[in-house]
Amino acid sequence: MSEIIRVDLNSDLGESFGNYRFSDDSGIIQLTSSVNVACGCHAGDPIVMDETVKRVKEAGIQLGAHPGYPDMQGFGRRNMALSAKEVCAYVVYQIGALDAFCKRNGVVMQHVKPHGALYNTAAKDPVIAEAIVEAVKCYNPELILMGLAGGELVKAGKSAGLRVAEEVFADRAYEEDGTLRARTKPDSMITDENESVERIIRMVKSGEVEAITGKIIPIRADSICVHGDGAKALKFVEKIRSRLIEEKIQISPLKDFIK
Amino acid sequence: MSEIIRVDLNSDLGESFGNYRFSDDSGIIQLTSSVNVACGCHAGDPIVMDETVKRVKEAGIQLGAHPGYPDMQGFGRRNMALSAKEVCAYVVYQIGALDAFCKRNGVVMQHVKPHGALYNTAAKDPVIAEAIVEAVKCYNPELILMGLAGGELVKAGKSAGLRVAEEVFADRAYEEDGTLRARTKPDSMITDENESVERIIRMVKSGEVEAITGKIIPIRADSICVHGDGAKALKFVEKIRSRLIEEKIQISPLKDFIK
Amino acid sequence: MSEIIRVDLNSDLGESFGNYRFSDDSGIIQLTSSVNVACGCHAGDPIVMDETVKRVKEAGIQLGAHPGYPDMQGFGRRNMALSAKEVCAYVVYQIGALDAFCKRNGVVMQHVKPHGALYNTAAKDPVIAEAIVEAVKCYNPELILMGLAGGELVKAGKSAGLRVAEEVFADRAYEEDGTLRARTKPDSMITDENESVERIIRMVKSGEVEAITGKIIPIRADSICVHGDGAKALKFVEKIRSRLIEEKIQISPLKDFIK
Amino acid sequence: MSEIIRVDLNSDLGESFGNYRFSDDSGIIQLTSSVNVACGCHAGDPIVMDETVKRVKEAGIQLGAHPGYPDMQGFGRRNMALSAKEVCAYVVYQIGALDAFCKRNGVVMQHVKPHGALYNTAAKDPVIAEAIVEAVKCYNPELILMGLAGGELVKAGKSAGLRVAEEVFADRAYEEDGTLRARTKPDSMITDENESVERIIRMVKSGEVEAITGKIIPIRADSICVHGDGAKALKFVEKIRSRLIEEKIQISPLKDFIK
Repeated sequence: MSEIIRVDLNSDLGESFGNYRFSDDSGIIQLTSSVNVACGCHAGDPIVMDETVKRVKEAGIQLGAHPGYPDMQGFGRRNMALSAKEVCAYVVYQIGALDAFCKRNGVVMQHVKPHGALYNTAAKDPVIAEAIVEAVKCYNPELILMGLAGGELVKAGKSAGLRVAEEVFADRAYEEDGTLRARTKPDSMITDENESVERIIRMVKSGEVEAITGKIIPIRADSICVHGDGAKALKFVEKIRSRLIEEKIQISPLKDFIK
Repeated sequence: MSEIIRVDLNSDLGESFGNYRFSDDSGIIQLTSSVNVACGCHAGDPIVMDETVKRVKEAGIQLGAHPGYPDMQGFGRRNMALSAKEVCAYVVYQIGALDAFCKRNGVVMQHVKPHGALYNTAAKDPVIAEAIVEAVKCYNPELILMGLAGGELVKAGKSAGLRVAEEVFADRAYEEDGTLRARTKPDSMITDENESVERIIRMVKSGEVEAITGKIIPIRADSICVHGDGAKALKFVEKIRSRLIEEKIQISPLKDFIK
Repeated sequence: MSEIIRVDLNSDLGESFGNYRFSDDSGIIQLTSSVNVACGCHAGDPIVMDETVKRVKEAGIQLGAHPGYPDMQGFGRRNMALSAKEVCAYVVYQIGALDAFCKRNGVVMQHVKPHGALYNTAAKDPVIAEAIVEAVKCYNPELILMGLAGGELVKAGKSAGLRVAEEVFADRAYEEDGTLRARTKPDSMITDENESVERIIRMVKSGEVEAITGKIIPIRADSICVHGDGAKALKFVEKIRSRLIEEKIQISPLKDFIK
Repeated sequence: MSEIIRVDLNSDLGESFGNYRFSDDSGIIQLTSSVNVACGCHAGDPIVMDETVKRVKEAGIQLGAHPGYPDMQGFGRRNMALSAKEVCAYVVYQIGALDAFCKRNGVVMQHVKPHGALYNTAAKDPVIAEAIVEAVKCYNPELILMGLAGGELVKAGKSAGLRVAEEVFADRAYEEDGTLRARTKPDSMITDENESVERIIRMVKSGEVEAITGKIIPIRADSICVHGDGAKALKFVEKIRSRLIEEKIQISPLKDFIK
């Protein structure tokens, strides 16, 4: 009897700030199994965090902290030359702040996934990766750490004995070494939706993906990053879901299968 | 056999921010039994918070969260017209953020004391007081809530079943209703150090203080607010300590005697 | 031969911030004669300011600085207890920052209108009104100062010899003393659009408005505050414009008629 | 008859923020001919800016804008991956904000010198250098642009036809290519004060400096960067001044000799 194949669908949530609304979270929340909640440094604020945790609880899905660089104006997307000590402290701070709203609402935090430029840096820079691992581990070693499949963060998390979830992207091209092809380079995006979906199915079922060079490389797909901004984005997520179900792949939150 | 009289000495700590150093915390930390640690909204930052928690742990004293208005430029001293919902969420956020560093360093948070303008508003405005009580209670009902002796925060905390510590000031005059005399009015400060100290002793031993009008009013002194900025301030704290010891009043952290 | 009656239509603009878009400015910009541009303290940022000034220039209308409290999270809508000295300095700062983008784009700043809670406080509190007047005067006494019709800011501006524009609201009820009826009170909003428009016409043509009590009170309408968020709001502005034109009232920027 | 040799002595000023005092500006202000005033993004605030401009005016020296990255917590010392468009807009914003206080106090801004990480990046990265040049030029092409001697900012400024001041450091070692030796490398600092002073004299008089390799390289010294934090720093500046005077080098603000 074959084992059930599982995968998580994750999306960023709670990115509004004060008077500023950021996308409509209600659509995507129904289509994911885990969401990453902004913690008030690159997006989000205490009111938004509280409301987002409530909404996630109602939807019956899992949530994680989504710490980012302290740069609201840049939405955490501009790299900042922080020391490892700073990154660790900022991540501890943000996890704790979000966890307070989890406590308030009777929710257990599932995971931590760094945001934007911090995510990218953590995938490449072992020093920053280690700083994030240290933050997660000292706060709560039961938390699952999510990072780019095959990246430095994932490696550092495993070395430290954390439970780790490897994340893949449906619409991005991969280099031969398993890194994401830079957006500044040609053909960095997979624009054909059907092709994107079939790539996902292959990553999840076979643990492999075709790199930009044509070479088939191994990749681990514990979670698929999806987006909820706009009707088109939501349609695409529904397409992914349908194909996953068709393939009898079970969409489950990380906590159900990451060991 | 007479019961031991106890009182706590508390001071604000960890108010540096980035490159900005704020007073030398090392002097005052030796003279207090509890300290209030800034949480990155009106003062402090993740690095400072982590270092402050470490320092407090080494000193063997107790610490609490010191949440304030989100106004670094005003140091939390300018009143802001926040809704109760906002105050509650901001306090939850700040408690959680500091508690993350407590967890990291193996320290148990003892109390919560609002800062500056938020402290003053909470002493007078029952709606804001209630919002802070709600924040503490939903995060951790074991936390002690510290507020102005006889003020609205203290009342709201008691009504909600929280453990409450009433705070008194050595160098401030009191109105007949037990509120602090506004600094903008004449004779709001007790400038004679000996008089200040004797007022403290009376408050702690007899539970009373002479109001500005000459009338003796009841007051409960669980904790005395002291300051560590400068040599003169430290000398004054030492004077208070000496007299308390002379009077066989035991200087103890709140957790040892607040029920 | 009768004199031409003129009125300005003004709207807030450039309230986006970093990654956060705030309403679509392109609709309302065609319907106003003057716009108030956020200066990076309660909304806006340097990129948004530069783009907004460019857009205003292309539209051929006039612009002013829209300084607010330094509270991005509260969008400048939460009152802050700032000293007069602080208000003055913050307004000078914001005017200068916006004026830099006017210089860059070859645009001459027309006016200054405080935002949100600062606007409301300046209408009631003569000390804060005076601080704003001082800021405008010391920066450039040729700037027109816009404030609530009949309010303290307008009075202080006139006393100081500044050119002053009095602003009225189409959809708000007025108290007998000419102040806006607080939104927390019943019937504070005029919900019938036709009634709103006719009130505007009366204010502009006859210099009077019916207060909530039924009494007719004098009011000066140099500029009408309009909003551009959403299709319904834009339709309402078009309605106001049509009726003004029907009544042969000329929609003109402040600089064309404020002396 | 020989021409008078002139050099400017510059220092950062106005780096306090809200309740946070940063060094005592009163000592250094007497020893410099030009100062760089923080503009509220990496340090400073509107109150501090206003007071600093007043103080500079009283001292009878010249001032410039000191724009930095928008990172108060990092004091502008952490590099941020901003686009050229963002750098340009942020610099325009900061120059305008400071210039407002110059106008208020009847002072004419002399120069612009980027701060911290932005200064370092502008010395190396021609794209960022160009963005700063564009900001200065569009705001006021009469402003003098100060940058690292021989660096990219200085080159870009000259190409654009701006008046440019080249800055040297007394206490830093230089590489053979004229760049500052990175602080992370050995022997990056000149620790011997006499040696530092003699290097300065040689740079100013002969336009050359001994690089870390021993090779003598050309360098242009229009201004010397000095620091005012602490008694030792001030003593060192006095030493530099004395030797300059001894050598009949005239200490003059940039505007007196930069063409």
